[in-house]
Amino acid sequence: MISTCISKMAERTYKYLDNINSPADLKKIDKDELKIVCQELRSFIIDAVSKNPGHLGSNLGVVELTVALHYVFDTPYDRIVWDVGHQAYGHKILTGRRDVFHTNRQYGGISGFPKITESEYDAFGVGHASTSISAALGMAIASQMKDEKRRVVAVIGDGSMTGGLAFEGLNNTSMVKNDMLIVLNDNQMAIDPINGGFSQYLIDITTSKTYNKIRHKVYKLFSKSKIVDEDRKNKIIRFNNSLKTVFTQKEHNIFEGLNIRYFGPVDGHDVDNLVRIFSELKDYKGPKVLHVITKKGKGYEPAEKSVTSWHAPGKFDPETGERLVCNNNNTEPPLFQDVFGKTLLELAKLNDKIVAITPAMPSGCSMTIMQRRFPERVFDVGIAEGHAVTFSAGLTKEGLIPFCNIYSTFMQRAYDSVIHDVALQKLPVIMCLDRAGIVGSDGSTHQGQFDMAYMRCIPNLTIAAPRNEMELRNLMFTAQQFQEGPFVIRYPRGKGFNVDWHNDWELQEIGKGECLKEGEDLAVITIGTMAAKAEKAINMVENETNLSIAHYDARFLKPLDEELLHAVAMKFNKIITIEDGVISGGFGSAVLEFLAENNYQKEVVRLGIPDAFIEHGSQTELYALLGLDEKGIRESIEKLLDLKAADHAKTELIEDAKLDHL
Amino acid sequence: MISTCISKMAERTYKYLDNINSPADLKKIDKDELKIVCQELRSFIIDAVSKNPGHLGSNLGVVELTVALHYVFDTPYDRIVWDVGHQAYGHKILTGRRDVFHTNRQYGGISGFPKITESEYDAFGVGHASTSISAALGMAIASQMKDEKRRVVAVIGDGSMTGGLAFEGLNNTSMVKNDMLIVLNDNQMAIDPINGGFSQYLIDITTSKTYNKIRHKVYKLFSKSKIVDEDRKNKIIRFNNSLKTVFTQKEHNIFEGLNIRYFGPVDGHDVDNLVRIFSELKDYKGPKVLHVITKKGKGYEPAEKSVTSWHAPGKFDPETGERLVCNNNNTEPPLFQDVFGKTLLELAKLNDKIVAITPAMPSGCSMTIMQRRFPERVFDVGIAEGHAVTFSAGLTKEGLIPFCNIYSTFMQRAYDSVIHDVALQKLPVIMCLDRAGIVGSDGSTHQGQFDMAYMRCIPNLTIAAPRNEMELRNLMFTAQQFQEGPFVIRYPRGKGFNVDWHNDWELQEIGKGECLKEGEDLAVITIGTMAAKAEKAINMVENETNLSIAHYDARFLKPLDEELLHAVAMKFNKIITIEDGVISGGFGSAVLEFLAENNYQKEVVRLGIPDAFIEHGSQTELYALLGLDEKGIRESIEKLLDLKAADHAKTELIEDAKLDHL
Repeated sequence: MISTCISKMAERTYKYLDNINSPADLKKIDKDELKIVCQELRSFIIDAVSKNPGHLGSNLGVVELTVALHYVFDTPYDRIVWDVGHQAYGHKILTGRRDVFHTNRQYGGISGFPKITESEYDAFGVGHASTSISAALGMAIASQMKDEKRRVVAVIGDGSMTGGLAFEGLNNTSMVKNDMLIVLNDNQMAIDPINGGFSQYLIDITTSKTYNKIRHKVYKLFSKSKIVDEDRKNKIIRFNNSLKTVFTQKEHNIFEGLNIRYFGPVDGHDVDNLVRIFSELKDYKGPKVLHVITKKGKGYEPAEKSVTSWHAPGKFDPETGERLVCNNNNTEPPLFQDVFGKTLLELAKLNDKIVAITPAMPSGCSMTIMQRRFPERVFDVGIAEGHAVTFSAGLTKEGLIPFCNIYSTFMQRAYDSVIHDVALQKLPVIMCLDRAGIVGSDGSTHQGQFDMAYMRCIPNLTIAAPRNEMELRNLMFTAQQFQEGPFVIRYPRGKGFNVDWHNDWELQEIGKGECLKEGEDLAVITIGTMAAKAEKAINMVENETNLSIAHYDARFLKPLDEELLHAVAMKFNKIITIEDGVISGGFGSAVLEFLAENNYQKEVVRLGIPDAFIEHGSQTELYALLGLDEKGIRESIEKLLDLKAADHAKTELIEDAKLDHL
Repeated sequence: MISTCISKMAERTYKYLDNINSPADLKKIDKDELKIVCQELRSFIIDAVSKNPGHLGSNLGVVELTVALHYVFDTPYDRIVWDVGHQAYGHKILTGRRDVFHTNRQYGGISGFPKITESEYDAFGVGHASTSISAALGMAIASQMKDEKRRVVAVIGDGSMTGGLAFEGLNNTSMVKNDMLIVLNDNQMAIDPINGGFSQYLIDITTSKTYNKIRHKVYKLFSKSKIVDEDRKNKIIRFNNSLKTVFTQKEHNIFEGLNIRYFGPVDGHDVDNLVRIFSELKDYKGPKVLHVITKKGKGYEPAEKSVTSWHAPGKFDPETGERLVCNNNNTEPPLFQDVFGKTLLELAKLNDKIVAITPAMPSGCSMTIMQRRFPERVFDVGIAEGHAVTFSAGLTKEGLIPFCNIYSTFMQRAYDSVIHDVALQKLPVIMCLDRAGIVGSDGSTHQGQFDMAYMRCIPNLTIAAPRNEMELRNLMFTAQQFQEGPFVIRYPRGKGFNVDWHNDWELQEIGKGECLKEGEDLAVITIGTMAAKAEKAINMVENETNLSIAHYDARFLKPLDEELLHAVAMKFNKIITIEDGVISGGFGSAVLEFLAENNYQKEVVRLGIPDAFIEHGSQTELYALLGLDEKGIRESIEKLLDLKAADHAKTELIEDAKLDHL
C-alpha cells in the first residue's frame, strides 16, 4: 500500500514547477499564479523528502518566502544568504537543481546546504547558525565599494538570532553605509522550541492588540509636543514602531535601537503580499529588517502539529504521515545519544548537584530524557554555544556538576570559552561532544573531525573517547566524580554495538587505556569506537596469515596512557594508530610526540581523516572512502606488514572535487 | 626632578586606605568618608601604575563603583565578576592585595587580571571580554539551586557588550529565575573608541532631553486609556523607561526587551548615590541592569584628555603626566605592529581592493596608520572577533582583499568562523595574528600560544610566520596576491631586529622555507622569530666545539616545505624544532608527522611552550624560563649532541604554582 502511494507520487507532474529551471523562468509566471507555484513547490519538497530524508519543517515554512525572493530579486547577481541553510531546498529547486534534488544529502549528490562551489545562486556556504548577517554585510559593503548595484539579503531564523555572532553582525550593520535587507524568519523554533528573552520579545512584538487603537491618539499628542512635527516626517514610521513596542509592554525595538529600520511583522505565507513588500523594500536605502511570521511544516498537517519530530523526519508516507522506519527497539543496539540521555538521568537521580546544559539540541542529544524528569535542572540556552560553556563554568564555580553537551562541530564556536573560562581556571565542567567523527549526510559543515586536534593542545583538559556504550556510561560516571579539572567525552552519532548495554558503571582510571588483544608482529592503537572496526580488520588479517596483531584501546587522548605506550614501543617496531578525526594534530600525532619525547624510533602509520573537508554521504560510505572501515584498515595493516599495497583512494571526498553532474 | 617626585609619592600615606586590608575594614568607615577613600584609592592607583606599568584609564573610571560595591555587598560570599578584568586594580587593592600591588603584572607577582587562584575575592578569572554575564548567571543559578543567599554582580563595560557572548548571556538571563545584578559600566570606550549601534544606543538613552518634560503628559493619557491603571503600578517604572527610549528617538530598551529590569543611567562617580542605589538593588528580586556612566581616566587630567593613549600608558611622572619612556625612534628596530601598519598602508595605496578589519584594536595593531589615510577602507567592528572574520569572508566573496588583524589569543573566539566561513569555502581572507607567542605581562589569558596548534588542523589554510620585519613585509605582499585560499600570518608582540627594515618586498614562494646555515652534526628548524635566538645559540655552541649545526627556517607551518624536510631528514639523524607556541600539536608535531609519513626514523627534540598556561612576566623572563632563549636553546642543542645535560626548570611557569607571598 505504502509503496503504491510513493510510486504514484513519483510520477506527479507540475504545471509550473516542471518548467522552472532558473529564477528567470519563475519571473515569467504571472504574479497571480505564484500561489500555485508555492503549492507545487511544497508538494515537490514533501514528496522528495518523504523518499530521501532531509529537513522538512523548515523548508515548508519558507516556500512563499523563497518564491517571493527569487521573483523579486535579480539572483544570482543579487545575493541571498540563507542562515543555517537547511531551509534552502526550495531555493535549490528553483535555481536549476530540481532534477538532481533526489540526490540531496547523498554521497556524490547535492549538499543539504547552500554551497558556493555547487551553484552561483548559493551566495555563501552555510550549515552552522548565525553567520548570515555578518557575511551578507561584508558582501553588501564590498559591492558598494565596487560601485555595484547588487542587492544583498540575509534570511535568518529567530532561532539563529540567539547566537552571539548574529548580534555582532546586527550591531555592526548600522556602523557603515549599506543597503542590506535582513529577513527575520520568525517561526519560534530552532530544531527544538527556542528559549530566551529575544524569543519572547518576538512573540510580544507580534501579539500586541492595543497598538493600533492607541496609535492615533498618542501621535496627535506627540505632534503637539513638537517631538514629531512636519519637518520630521521621515521619523514617523520608526516612531510608530516604537509605539508598538510600548504597547506590548516590552518597550523596545532592538533593531530600531541599533539604527536598523524595522518593518513588519508580516504573514510569511502570503506570497502576494511578500512580493509586494519585497518590491517596495528592494531599493530602499539603508539597512532594514523585515520581520516575517512563518510556520514550520506549513501546509503539511503532521509536520505542523509536531514540529520537533518533523524537523528531519526520515522516510515517511506523504499521504498518511506514517514514518516508515522504526528506530530503536530492544533487539537493536541503542543510539549513543540515548545511552547518554538515559545514563545522565540515572546519574542525576543519584546526585542532585548534576545539571545539564545544551545549546538548542535537547532532542538531538537525548537530554530530553532528563528534562522530562528534572526540567528545572536542564538548561536549554538556545543557539549559544559560547554561553553554554561559560555558563557551565559559572555553575561549576559554585559547586554544581554540569554536563554540557555540544555537538563536536558546534564546539568550535565555544573554543575560547573552553580555553579561557574552563581550562585556564581548571573548572571541572563536563563537556560531552556528541556527533564526534563522521556525521554523514549533513556533510562538510557538520563533520566532527577537528575536536581531538583542537582540544588536545589545551592544557588542563582530560579528554576521553569511549569504545562502546558501556564505556560511555563508565566515563560519564567517572567524570561526575572527577574534581581536578574539566573532562571531555567525545562519542559518535548513531548506533552502538550492544543490545545489552546497560552495565553497572564503574570508575575508569584517568589516563588508562587497555590491551584488548595481545600480538607479536604489529600493534594497533585505536581511540573510541574505531576499536570495533579495527578488531574486525585484525581478525581478517590473522585469519589469512600466521601473523599476530596486538590491539590497544587508548581510551584517553589526554593524558595519554604512557605506561601502555611504553609497553607498545618496547615490544613493537610497527604501529598503526586509528582515529575518527583529522590526523593533523590528532591522536596519532600525540602518539608520535610521545615516541619522540622518549626517543623511540618506530614505523608509525596514522589512520584517520586527511587534511580536507569531508563531503556528505552515509557514515558507512564515508568511512569506507576514507579507508577507515574494516577493509581499509585491513589494507593498511597488510601494507605496513608488507603483505600488499593499500589501494583505496581518498580523493573523491575532498571538497574541491566538483560534483560533475551539476 | 622626576625621580624626586616619584620617591616623594612612594612615601605617601593614606588616612583610610592604609588600614583597609579587606572589605570588612572598608565597611567600618563612615559613609560620608567614602569620597575620601575614593580619592585615596585613585591616588594609590596613579602612583602605582606610574612606576609599574599597567592599565590606568579603566581603573580610574571605576574607583567609586569598586568602593560602593565592596561597601554594600558581602564579598567574597557575594560574587563580583569583573568583565575583562583590567579594571579590577581597585578591587585588588581593597581586598588584601595593597601591599603586593607593586608586583602587579610582574613575574611572580599578582596578575593584572582577577584570578580565582589568587584570591577568594576574585570570583571568576577573566582577561578576554564579554564573559561576565554568562559566568555570573551560572553562579547566580547555582547559588539559588543550593538555596544560598549569595548575590552575584557582573560588571561589564559598554565595549564588552558588543561581543556576541555578552548578548548570549543577556538573552539567557531572562530564561530562568535569578537575581543577578548586571552593572553596565558605560564609558563609551573599549581600548579604542567603540563602534556600532549598541554604542550609539547608550549615548542616545543617556542624552535625551525631552524625556522628563513629556513624561507626565503621556502618563496621564496612558492612564486614561487604561494601558496603565492602578492595578498595574508595578509596570510603571518599566513604562517610564520605555518612554525614555521613545524620546531619544531610538525607541527601545534592549534590556527591558529581554525581560531584564533596567535602572539608570546614574553617575558612576557619585559614590554616595552608588551606595544608596546598590543598597536598594541588592535584594531586589529578578535580573536587573544598572546603567552607570563613568569616565575613563577620571580624576587624572592627562588620562581624561587622551583616553586611548592612557589605557595602558607605560611609566609616567604622576605629577606632570610626562611619559618616561620614549619608544621607537629611528635608531631602534621598529615594532612588528608598526611594520604591519606601515606596510598595510603601502599595499593599500597600490591596490584599492585592499581593506582592513580589526575587532577593537586599531591602535594595538597599528591599523590606525591606514585608518588615517583611508578611513572608509578600515573597519573597526568593535569587540566582535567572530564577526570580524565572517564579515571578512563576505568582503572576500565579493572580490575585496581584507587584512583581518586579530591578536592570536582573541582569534580563539573566531575559531568556527575561520573553519566554517573562511577555510571550508576557500575564501582568500588574509588573517594576521598579532601578538602570537609569549605576550608578557598580560599573562595567561593573553599568551598567543595555541594558534599554530589550532590552525594547523584546518584544511585549506596557508599559514606562515615571518622570521623578521622584512619577511613580514614579503608575506603581506604575497598574501594580497594569493587567491587560492585563506592566508594566515602570525607574528609576535614587540620589537623586531632591524633598524633598516623597509625592504623592497618580494613574492615568497608558498610553502618554501630556507636554509639559513649549513652544518653537519645536527639540524635546527625554526619557525618565525625564534630564528634569531636559535642563531645565537648555534653560534655559541659552534664557538665552543668543533661541531657544525645547520639552521633552517620553515617559514610556512602549512604547507610544510617538504623538499626542505626531505633534505634535512636525509642528511641528519638529530633534529631540533623550535617554535613560540605549544608543542602539543604545533610546528614540531607537524615535522614529526612528516617524518612518520615518510618513514624517517630520527631523534627529534621539539622546543616550544609546554602543555601549560603560562603566567605573566616580561617576554624576556618568560622565554628564558621556558628554555626558549639563547641559553635554553644552547642547552638543548648540547644535550641532544650529548655535550651536557640541560638544566633549566620550567615548572615555575605553570598556572598551578601558587603565588606564595600572597
